[in-house]
Amino acid sequence: MVSVREADEIIAQVPAVLSVKSVLLREATGCVLAEEIRADRDIPPYDRVAMDGFAIDSGAYAAGKSFRIAGIQPAGSEPLLLASPNDCIEVMTGALLPNGTNTVIRYEDGEVAEGYFRPHPELQVMPYVNIHRKGTDARRDDVLLSPGTFISPAEAAILASVGKATVSVYELPRAVVISTGDELVPVDAHPQPHQIRQSNTYALQAAMHALNWKAEAVHIKDDDQELRKRLAQFLNDFDVLILTGGVSKGKFDYLPRVLEDLGVKKLFHQVAQKPGKPFWFGMSNSGKVVFALPGNPVSTYLCFYRYIRPWILRSLHIPIPLVEAELTEEVIFKPTLTYFLQAEVYLSRGKVWARPVAGHGSGDFVNLKNVNAFVELPADQTVFPAGKTFPIITFRPLF
Amino acid sequence: MVSVREADEIIAQVPAVLSVKSVLLREATGCVLAEEIRADRDIPPYDRVAMDGFAIDSGAYAAGKSFRIAGIQPAGSEPLLLASPNDCIEVMTGALLPNGTNTVIRYEDGEVAEGYFRPHPELQVMPYVNIHRKGTDARRDDVLLSPGTFISPAEAAILASVGKATVSVYELPRAVVISTGDELVPVDAHPQPHQIRQSNTYALQAAMHALNWKAEAVHIKDDDQELRKRLAQFLNDFDVLILTGGVSKGKFDYLPRVLEDLGVKKLFHQVAQKPGKPFWFGMSNSGKVVFALPGNPVSTYLCFYRYIRPWILRSLHIPIPLVEAELTEEVIFKPTLTYFLQAEVYLSRGKVWARPVAGHGSGDFVNLKNVNAFVELPADQTVFPAGKTFPIITFRPLF
Repeated sequence: MVSVREADEIIAQVPAVLSVKSVLLREATGCVLAEEIRADRDIPPYDRVAMDGFAIDSGAYAAGKSFRIAGIQPAGSEPLLLASPNDCIEVMTGALLPNGTNTVIRYEDGEVAEGYFRPHPELQVMPYVNIHRKGTDARRDDVLLSPGTFISPAEAAILASVGKATVSVYELPRAVVISTGDELVPVDAHPQPHQIRQSNTYALQAAMHALNWKAEAVHIKDDDQELRKRLAQFLNDFDVLILTGGVSKGKFDYLPRVLEDLGVKKLFHQVAQKPGKPFWFGMSNSGKVVFALPGNPVSTYLCFYRYIRPWILRSLHIPIPLVEAELTEEVIFKPTLTYFLQAEVYLSRGKVWARPVAGHGSGDFVNLKNVNAFVELPADQTVFPAGKTFPIITFRPLF
Repeated sequence: MVSVREADEIIAQVPAVLSVKSVLLREATGCVLAEEIRADRDIPPYDRVAMDGFAIDSGAYAAGKSFRIAGIQPAGSEPLLLASPNDCIEVMTGALLPNGTNTVIRYEDGEVAEGYFRPHPELQVMPYVNIHRKGTDARRDDVLLSPGTFISPAEAAILASVGKATVSVYELPRAVVISTGDELVPVDAHPQPHQIRQSNTYALQAAMHALNWKAEAVHIKDDDQELRKRLAQFLNDFDVLILTGGVSKGKFDYLPRVLEDLGVKKLFHQVAQKPGKPFWFGMSNSGKVVFALPGNPVSTYLCFYRYIRPWILRSLHIPIPLVEAELTEEVIFKPTLTYFLQAEVYLSRGKVWARPVAGHGSGDFVNLKNVNAFVELPADQTVFPAGKTFPIITFRPLF
């Protein structure tokens, strides 16, 4: 048995196999960038009019003066030239600042009459007002985005602006989710009284989907020969195997033995935690990674969010912030195990709170709908007072 | 011009058109449930063995007593019957509790020798230990999930457990994202010095993608006839039009006039906010909804996350919690407008913090990569002190 910290360290030493693929920008949202993105031009690429109004040469301004409207500069046109400092040019937001002008006065800051524009006499006219100046936001060749950046809408806009119609993103390891347990029947089956429907593979696939990580899902019967044959095939076809069930101490829990026979070296078996103690982790000589999770649904859930998700994010170089929440009530847990308490975490009055919602043990997946996080309570304490903060692992967006 | 609060109220009165579709459970993650889900059986459906070990009749226990191992009860089999209270039955996690037994003693709490199991003499044997009792988590016909529930991995597991191989989810309104502005060229074009590439439609589509909301994206030239013709078609083909650009006061900003000519009634034009002041909102007689957002990228972004996203979530009956963050430094903003300050929001020491990262105005979309939220600073104040909390609108997952 290893501690939670030891399990972390062992898993962190095992690399995830990432490759790189090219996707259309419109399909890149939610992926992680695998290339460096530099500005191909200054941003903005020109002195850009930021408000609708009139462009003048501020040096020619005096209070009360009127300017002849000499032309109009729409967005998307080549720049006009101010022929005389007594002229002005009507300008539209997004347009290039006309040559010979250096400031923009908004419509509402003056009056138009008989072909002239007269700024309000009390207006302070300064150069480079209402102009988004060339190169303010970035200079040509500046690094805008680095590999390992999660592509959210802001990054999509940046990628579009520099002309990346296709973009290199990381492809996650080929993965298969495997359930075991002869009590399990397919979702569309009518279970006998001693049977239940599979649910873990659905939860795992959905959790992986949220990471843009596709996985196949299969079920294997608790049969030594069958397990041996199919796992050998999966170890050939996939980079990562995520198993649920079959790792505790029972007579029919063949899995650890079969995996070792197939050349998957055990790196740990059992973690000093509740739930999820029977967790088994190993790697084959050829670098195939096997997470064999306990089959109780809450244990499966905890192990995915506490170990597998961070493993993938770390492999993608995505930082994982330590987030802590304040317990709203006292919790007592006596065993010398790290206790992953189910909780409703919420933000209120500028603080992060965790309200314990214990549920009925690791088989109670129904309780997961009422909570959004696990609170990680360390093994060396028994009493966890209200008002103290502890690390949390969230599995739903908080807002 | 309306206030932010008035804009909220006006938008809230306009319904989003939702329909219902049936999807495969494996594709339902991220959708919002449109049906009530009840338990088709008790959960668990039987007294379920929660640990590997031996099942006995606790009434027959006495310290030091050995029990004859009469059989083995694997998961997924019909229940054995304890023939004698002096017997025990070896049981596997997930199995049905054998008839005649009422408690499970774990392997590690006893010793096996010569066909007998002897619990450690100091063990306290109580009924119904290590058993996940029938109906503990839910009773048959209990409502497990209600319409309006976001389907995360936990809900996927619950849906699987009750046999929902296909599930009814809400289908969001048919939407089109329309950019205007003659300075804009396609992403794969090589822009002239006075042109820039389109980026707003990419940001909007990506933001909608995160809500599982698909949208087409098109660009229309700043030409009255062209706008008229194509908007008429879009008003016919789609439920929601999201436009960017063309709503400020410039000579070429035809949009509000064209929309009204096409029968889209203006519900407001201009909101007392920065950025995003020119925001226009309207609805046609036939219930088509038009959000015409200012074209500056940060304005577009703010209006989507502050108004359109909540509109959709509210239509789906998904609660939107008020989240507040504490300013890390003083902010001064003089105009009597609601100021949506760009900020990096982070959770630390159990609190929610907002660090202002102002950027270079509403044209500076590059700054959006450095921030994850807007802080909503009310119009009736000028000085916003460090240490005070204000509402935030996040546009990236915080963790």
